[in-house]
This record gives sequence, structure tokens and C-alpha cells, in this order.
Amino acid sequence: DPKIKLFSLNSNQPLAQEIAKEIGVELGRCSVHRFSDGEIQINIEESVRGCNVYVIQSTSQPVNENLMELLIMIDALKRASAKTINIVMPYYGYARQDRKARAREPITAKLVANLLETAGATRVLTLDLHAPQIQGFFDIPIDHLMGVPILSDYFKNRQLNGDIVVVSPDHGGVTRARKMAERLKAPIAIIDKRRPRPNVAEVMNIVGNIEGKIAILIDDIIDTAGTITLAANALVENGAKEVYASCTHPVLSGPAIERIQNSKIKELVVTNSIALAEEKKIEKIKSLSVAPLIAEAIIRIHEEQSVSTLFD
Amino acid sequence: DPKIKLFSLNSNQPLAQEIAKEIGVELGRCSVHRFSDGEIQINIEESVRGCNVYVIQSTSQPVNENLMELLIMIDALKRASAKTINIVMPYYGYARQDRKARAREPITAKLVANLLETAGATRVLTLDLHAPQIQGFFDIPIDHLMGVPILSDYFKNRQLNGDIVVVSPDHGGVTRARKMAERLKAPIAIIDKRRPRPNVAEVMNIVGNIEGKIAILIDDIIDTAGTITLAANALVENGAKEVYASCTHPVLSGPAIERIQNSKIKELVVTNSIALAEEKKIEKIKSLSVAPLIAEAIIRIHEEQSVSTLFD
Ligand SMILES: Nc1ncnc2c1ncn2[C@@H]1O[C@H](COP(=O)(O)O)[C@@H](O)[C@H]1O
Ligand SMILES: Nc1ncnc2c1ncn2[C@@H]1O[C@H](COP(=O)(O)O)[C@@H](O)[C@H]1O
Repeated sequence: DPKIKLFSLNSNQPLAQEIAKEIGVELGRCSVHRFSDGEIQINIEESVRGCNVYVIQSTSQPVNENLMELLIMIDALKRASAKTINIVMPYYGYARQDRKARAREPITAKLVANLLETAGATRVLTLDLHAPQIQGFFDIPIDHLMGVPILSDYFKNRQLNGDIVVVSPDHGGVTRARKMAERLKAPIAIIDKRRPRPNVAEVMNIVGNIEGKIAILIDDIIDTAGTITLAANALVENGAKEVYASCTHPVLSGPAIERIQNSKIKELVVTNSIALAEEKKIEKIKSLSVAPLIAEAIIRIHEEQSVSTLFD
Repeated sequence: DPKIKLFSLNSNQPLAQEIAKEIGVELGRCSVHRFSDGEIQINIEESVRGCNVYVIQSTSQPVNENLMELLIMIDALKRASAKTINIVMPYYGYARQDRKARAREPITAKLVANLLETAGATRVLTLDLHAPQIQGFFDIPIDHLMGVPILSDYFKNRQLNGDIVVVSPDHGGVTRARKMAERLKAPIAIIDKRRPRPNVAEVMNIVGNIEGKIAILIDDIIDTAGTITLAANALVENGAKEVYASCTHPVLSGPAIERIQNSKIKELVVTNSIALAEEKKIEKIKSLSVAPLIAEAIIRIHEEQSVSTLFD
């Protein structure tokens, strides 16, 4: 009976450590270095022959470095005769490039799926894909976990003092807001906005009743935080009592931290799907761990049980 | 009759400009940017439907960024219905990871070949692969050009005043040294060295007669320049009159420039397969252009003539 072999690459070592602890195994020994010219050098330092291997790597910033680390690790595992190579990718980089929005654009989210399969991945476990359709980009099994229950439970336990309304910052996120609203037994509202160009957001109009209520914004990714901070400020201006924000993936690039600090957001609740750099660990940001969820999913995959029952 | 469509990515724009000029075409319009979080955004800004497209990109430092740019560009070209997608990769990054030197190592040079094919490349044109066997990693046609004629011609025309000996800095490079020696009608010598670990070199012993001669060291890649500078100094200590060095690919990472400045090398002759950063453009380094060679090869591929006759 093969044991679970967990390996961590460089993108999110703290999460990998936590997952290993939850499962009750040690992380496998492997060295991931850079040669002087920046080329990645990987050596797996223990046998993986015949093993079910799980590699933990988010393709967060620096996305191209982290993706190449992962592809090279998969190649090494394949050549070392691993039985299965299961990719645990809490954050799936390039997920927003999931369609041809204009002529002659790539579909990089699909390219990434192809690259992982070509390298030798046999299964993928991920969390809150920007579009659930990305599951169909793979010809290997993919398990898709959700951040909403973790984020919702946090707000439920926080016992906020007043009526709650869950707010989607755009049309694309309404289904997600609906799911959180059900868990919190609250109504929803929608920010009806137009985005002039990427990384720039403009708030337009609020659909739904938010007056005097505690608004909880929910999104999958917060990147430059333009959308979410403008939404928060618009909610307050339109009579919301307090505004909380939440997301699964705290990309938080460029001006994000400054914008969050200066916004009307009282607290931003995120998960550790992406490791926060030290300078991003500000008081306003509360990070929840997805390690128990991912550990449970890994155990179920390993025991060939259904992962979907995790959502019951 | 389809025209040649040349596109340049970000690794070596000056070379791409030169190649376009040699062929007598304009570079195709495409934008290659970074989103705020470091993800690559590519848009091809003119039709490529039914075209034979040539993409110029060396996977030099930063290798993972440059490789991902290339893969994403190939994906975009494929989806834009290009007829053929020809990759012009003067420098092939990761070529030194071409075999399992230890247990449980990847073979990243093969992984790169797989990734290029998966993305949709239909042909590859490259220069001086670290091992010619890498050609066999591809299932698509690959053309392999040589830097030796360009480097040799330079020394021939320079009319060095004295007897020449061509020196290989290690056992692996003897065939290359032999080729240059034939062109210069000179004998060869070999540095018989042991390398304790990567990026560290140790000169041992010189096989062949170098006393009173002008030694020309030749290698494919000069990376941290440890090997070549120790070799040069050993040659001078053992009685060489002057030492020149040459290579096709000036990787020149880490301490390379300082080592070259402080060494007994009189002049280092390289090609522009890799663009030299401004701080690496020192007087001791002479750069020769491979643009005429590559332009000629592209024209021959386009006209469905043999590229191998370029070496006649
Ligand atoms: N890394 C990124 N940063 C900012 N915008 C992106 C990124 N990747 C893709 N996009 C753009 O975001 C849009 C997709 O987001 P959405 O409309 O929310 O699905 C597309 O217009 C993409 O061009
Ligand atoms: N980017 C790199 N920088 C330094 N050494 C490398 C690099 N890539 C591979 N190597 C090592 O270089 C050796 C291959 O070089 P060679 O023996 O000259 O073919 C192997 O031991 C590799 O581990």
C-alpha cells in the first residue's frame, strides 16, 4: 500500500508545511535552486518509484518562475518512475486568460493545462478557478475545491452586529455571492460597473438594497484591488453601515495594499492559497487557511474516495 | 505565394531588427506586455492567417520569462491560423540539462522541446546546441546552424602575427576546436581539467604544444567564465604568447564580466545570439552578428531549400 508523498516547491512553503502536518506526513526532500544564469535546477532527494506523489505549488507571482519550477518537477518525477503525479495548485495562474476576448489573442489558461499534461501530470487539484470551464481544458481528472464555505464560516462565527448583505463586485461573480448569501442566510446585491481597461475599474450603480446594512463583498481574485476598493467606497457612500471584503486568492499586485489601506474596507478576509509577502501582512487583512480542506481532499484522492462529497 | 512574417519577442530585439533588414521585411506588429501581477499579455496586431511565421526569441536570461513569452506567442499564432510556426531560437536555454547526470533529475532540455511542440511550433531553427543530440528531442524538423565559421573568419581576417593554436577548454569541446583549427589551418590543444561542482572550474594540465603561440580558446557557451579565464591564465603561465577566447553564446552571468576583465584574455569574441546588457558591453568583448546567417537560413526554409548547404 503506497504512502502519500508530498513535495513542496517554492511558491507557498508555509501552506505546504501545514498540509503535511494535517495529513501527518513529512514533506519529501527535494532541492530547487537556481543556477547562476537563472535556470532552475531540481533534484529529488528520495525515491518516488511506484509512489502517489502530490506536488504543492501555486502559480502566483512570479508566475512564470513558479510554473517552470512545477513543469520541471513533474518531468523529474515522471523520469523517477512515480506512479501518479498529482498537482496541488491552490492558485491557478493565467486563469483570467481563459478565452479569446480579442482577435489573435492566446488562451493561456488552456496552454497551461496542455503544458502540465505534456510534462506528465496525471491529476490536478485546485481551488476557485476564475472560470469553472477551465476544468474542461484538461483531459486528466481535475478536482475543484471552493473557498466560499471557509470565507462564509468566518463571517458566520464573527457574529456581525446587524443585517448582512452579500455583494458581488461585478456581474461575473453573482453565483459566488449567491452561495455565500445562502450560507449566511442573507440577501445579495450587485455592483453594476464598467471596466474601461484591465487593472482599472469604475463603479457605476448598486443593484439591491444595502442601506444601513453590513455589506460583505466577495470575489475570487483581488489583484490590483481597484474594483473592490471602489465598490467598497460606493457602498459606504450609498448608505451601507460597514463594508467587509473577501476573496479566495489574494494576488494583491501593484497598488493593491495602498488602495486597501486607504479604502472604506473594514477588514479584508482572504485565504492562504497564495502566500502573502511580509509587506502585505497588514492588520486589515485576515488570512484563513485552506490547509485542512486541501489535506482532506488529498486523503480522499489517495484513498480513491470522492472529493465532491467535501461540499455536502 | 505567402510572404515571410517575422515577429520578435523581448529577448533580442536588436538581432531581430537586423534579421528583418537582411531579409528586407518589416517586423510584424505584436504587443508583449506584463499585467500588474507579472502575467504575460500578448496580442498579435496583424493577420497571420495562412502565413509562414518566424518568431525570433532566444531563451536567455531571464530564461523562464523568455520561454513563457515564446510558448504564449506560439499559442496565439496557432489560434490565429498561421500556416507554419517556425521558432528561431539562436540560444536554446536549458540545453545543459540534456541528460540525467544523477538519479531523479529532470531532462529539462527535452521538456522544453516537448513544451514547444505542445504549444504548436512546427519547426525550430537554432544555433550551436550544447549537445547536438538535442535535435533528437524534437519530432518536428529542426535546423542547426554553427557559430564556428563566423568566429573562425573573424580570426582569419584579423591577421594575427604568429603561429596559432586552437584550444578546447575541456574534453567536450574538442570537436568544435577541431573545426575551427581546420578553418585556420592550425593545430589544436586541450585543457585537461576537472570541475568539482557546477559554475566552479579547475584547470589541470595542457595537452598539446602551445609555447610561444597565439592561443584561441573556443567554447559554445561562456556562462560564469570560470572555466575560460582559468584556462586562459594557465595557457599564459605555460608559455602561450597571447590568448584570445571565443564562444557562440555569451551567457556571462554572475562574476563573468569581472573575471574576464581580470583575466589574461586579450579579446573575447562572441556572437549576438544573446543580446548583451549594456553593462556587459566592455572593450575586451567583440560581438559578431549571426543575422546574415539566420536570415539566409530563414529564406532557404521559406523557399523550401536545404539549410544544410549553408555549411558547404
Ligand atoms: N493577470 C491579469 N491581470 C489583469 N487583467 C488580466 C490578467 N489576465 C487576464 N486579464 C484580463 O482580464 C479579463 C478577464 O477577466 P474577467 O472579465 O473577469 O473574466 C480579460 O479582459 C483579460 O484580458
Ligand atoms: N544553467 C546552468 N548553469 C550551470 N551549470 C549547469 C546549468 N545547467 C546545467 N548545468 C550543469 O552543467 C553540466 C552539463 O554541462 P556539460 O558537462 O558541459 O555538458 C551538468 O552537470 C549540469 O548539472
